[in-house]
Amino acid sequence: MAEGKLLYAQSGGVTAVINATAAAVIETARAAKVPVLAARNGIIGALREELIDTTRESRARIAALRHTPGGAFGSCRYKLKSIAQNRAQYERLIEVFKAHDIRWFLYNGGNDSADTALKISQIGRELGHPIQVIGVPKTVDNDLAVTDTCPGFGSVAKYVAVSVAEASLDVESMCASSTKVFIIEVMGRHAGWIAAAGGLAAREAGDPPHLILFPEVAFDEAKFLARVRSTVEKVGYCTVVASEGLRNAAGEFLAEAGTRDAFGHTQLGGVAPVLAQLVKARLGYKYHWALPDYLQRSARHLASKTDADQAYAVGKAAVEYALAGHNAVMPVIVRTSDAPYRWKIEPAPLAKIANREKKLPKGFISRDGYGITAAARRYLEPLIRGEDPPRYGRHGLPEYVRLERNLVRRKLPAYVIEDR
Amino acid sequence: MAEGKLLYAQSGGVTAVINATAAAVIETARAAKVPVLAARNGIIGALREELIDTTRESRARIAALRHTPGGAFGSCRYKLKSIAQNRAQYERLIEVFKAHDIRWFLYNGGNDSADTALKISQIGRELGHPIQVIGVPKTVDNDLAVTDTCPGFGSVAKYVAVSVAEASLDVESMCASSTKVFIIEVMGRHAGWIAAAGGLAAREAGDPPHLILFPEVAFDEAKFLARVRSTVEKVGYCTVVASEGLRNAAGEFLAEAGTRDAFGHTQLGGVAPVLAQLVKARLGYKYHWALPDYLQRSARHLASKTDADQAYAVGKAAVEYALAGHNAVMPVIVRTSDAPYRWKIEPAPLAKIANREKKLPKGFISRDGYGITAAARRYLEPLIRGEDPPRYGRHGLPEYVRLERNLVRRKLPAYVIEDR
Repeated sequence: MAEGKLLYAQSGGVTAVINATAAAVIETARAAKVPVLAARNGIIGALREELIDTTRESRARIAALRHTPGGAFGSCRYKLKSIAQNRAQYERLIEVFKAHDIRWFLYNGGNDSADTALKISQIGRELGHPIQVIGVPKTVDNDLAVTDTCPGFGSVAKYVAVSVAEASLDVESMCASSTKVFIIEVMGRHAGWIAAAGGLAAREAGDPPHLILFPEVAFDEAKFLARVRSTVEKVGYCTVVASEGLRNAAGEFLAEAGTRDAFGHTQLGGVAPVLAQLVKARLGYKYHWALPDYLQRSARHLASKTDADQAYAVGKAAVEYALAGHNAVMPVIVRTSDAPYRWKIEPAPLAKIANREKKLPKGFISRDGYGITAAARRYLEPLIRGEDPPRYGRHGLPEYVRLERNLVRRKLPAYVIEDR
Repeated sequence: MAEGKLLYAQSGGVTAVINATAAAVIETARAAKVPVLAARNGIIGALREELIDTTRESRARIAALRHTPGGAFGSCRYKLKSIAQNRAQYERLIEVFKAHDIRWFLYNGGNDSADTALKISQIGRELGHPIQVIGVPKTVDNDLAVTDTCPGFGSVAKYVAVSVAEASLDVESMCASSTKVFIIEVMGRHAGWIAAAGGLAAREAGDPPHLILFPEVAFDEAKFLARVRSTVEKVGYCTVVASEGLRNAAGEFLAEAGTRDAFGHTQLGGVAPVLAQLVKARLGYKYHWALPDYLQRSARHLASKTDADQAYAVGKAAVEYALAGHNAVMPVIVRTSDAPYRWKIEPAPLAKIANREKKLPKGFISRDGYGITAAARRYLEPLIRGEDPPRYGRHGLPEYVRLERNLVRRKLPAYVIEDR
């Protein structure tokens, strides 16, 4: 048995499979007889010394985590400032680590978390408590550098592709006398990865989605309307996948440009209704629009098997790297072959990942700006492959688990996070 | 082999399982060696003599229909006027039936379609072409009289219950520092059946959804806001299921009251954003909202097994009734036991179903107006039981089928539907 404890924390927006990573961390550490604590609500819990004792969770509950969406220990959107700006916070963290004999810290998040993890790994030694820090990848945005993909993305991608296919069959059935334009708004404020995944629903020419609106391509109203009209005239209806991050030529979010509610506030979070009303006003077509919001990133019932497997694999590797003495690395997914699709996990330095952003390659967007290319399809398709459904109960609902979340006894004085 | 042909038509909004009914009709008729024609785009296709020859569809395609959402032959929202108002239309239908030796007409729809089916059964004899008409139940609205439930409803109910459970796990993970109120808008303009189904996600006290807003209960802003606040204070977050049909005390749809877009139009189809902005303005909570729209009624990937089985059973029974000489009836679902859940199919006179509407019983809404009762749960729960996933391809998408849809040769002059 290795001495010391391992601390695991979830960071940022949660996903359908982040708990699979948590399950892997705990199961792998248990096998190595290393006790795992989990920060309650992410790094905030680490600062406040709110540490969940996972050794008190049953084996069955931990196994069930693998199929449960959301973040089982709680997460937060909170980025530590630089060491120069807020040294006290880093000192507090190290104090908590010391008090609980924490030797390994696994931080499960995106770009910001990789940066925080890197800083913590640097300061530990300086403050006399060397701590090995491993970043663990997670984000539906698929924008982490180095790794081929990010756990969480494949499942959103599958949800969006399946939903586009299903809703389009519905619209197609009725288009002769009813709805002619259907718009689905998907996540991805800065990059069109999720919007691009909607393109996987189309397998043959004429298949929906007929138009994808990427945040990378400035919205051109006249061109968009012309394409909607020609699609309706040719196919009978038009399915549009619109990224929430769609901007006009001036760089303003469409969701914020123009629509105000009864209170005079800008209406946020709805590019789909803005587009729908534009279509109605200019072309007169009957429309429907959908905005699945959190449904898309929590739909564990429709998770991609590839994604769920990779989420588990990075958690397992993270513990193995920690126990093997690695520091300031992240297990990343390396694609070794497109067809057949093959991948492996390798360690990559956090310094190469922190604060970088992987953009959607230009070569993934078709020349007209409204579709995906063969290269995009080659990259995306393996990520939505395979199903990994949760177990359902007699009541017809998935058997999702809630943990006990018992906190370990505090050893330090209370701590107030000043900038919250 | 019986003489004559059977005509099948889909009517009104489609569902995740209406094609299971179509598969049952075709497979049952094939076994009895009765050829099936299907009207293209519902009754409009029957009037226009656009008849799809299902005998040219392969056995495999018909079998795959059972797991394919949407309406494979097309549907429409078009109600025939009364015989007195538009006798010519009925005469045209009978002419088409005569020309193609159609002896049996199966009309797969809701209240309106039951009414149309009844009228057609009456006029056939009068015009010298006796036709047996069987109504086949279908509607996500669950508002057909006599039948215990309506094929299509159980699958929407399951989708909504699962989505509420999943998205709430997401919100719960982040609520300490992020979104505190999540609102999901569901279908059901006139009755709260689908909203009620959202309540199935809650299995223990405190479970989401915390508030259901029914069209049957006038929206009380102050009471709603007080409940949202007390839920957030107690549970940490609040999940709200809102029916699109929610109205204020004056009887106006909330989705239409108050919000205007940049063009000055009333914003339609969004009670969720209206509620979200109210919460933000009055309580200051961070919110998210989802509006799954067609996704909920086309989500064949998450269909209820009970629902899919019943959709198939009514299609099979409809053909059996037709061939056994029944007329002007509908196969309805009769519940013979709640626990264990048991059901059977029986014929019921269309006259008892046409133009009636089954309301959500008062006893299904909890006294405070925001939840469902034990009676509601007893009724609803069996309807979402069981899973019946489609087959998925190597590409990670369900293997949904598109039919060939070859039309039979016309025998009559073209016909213009005047009021379209």
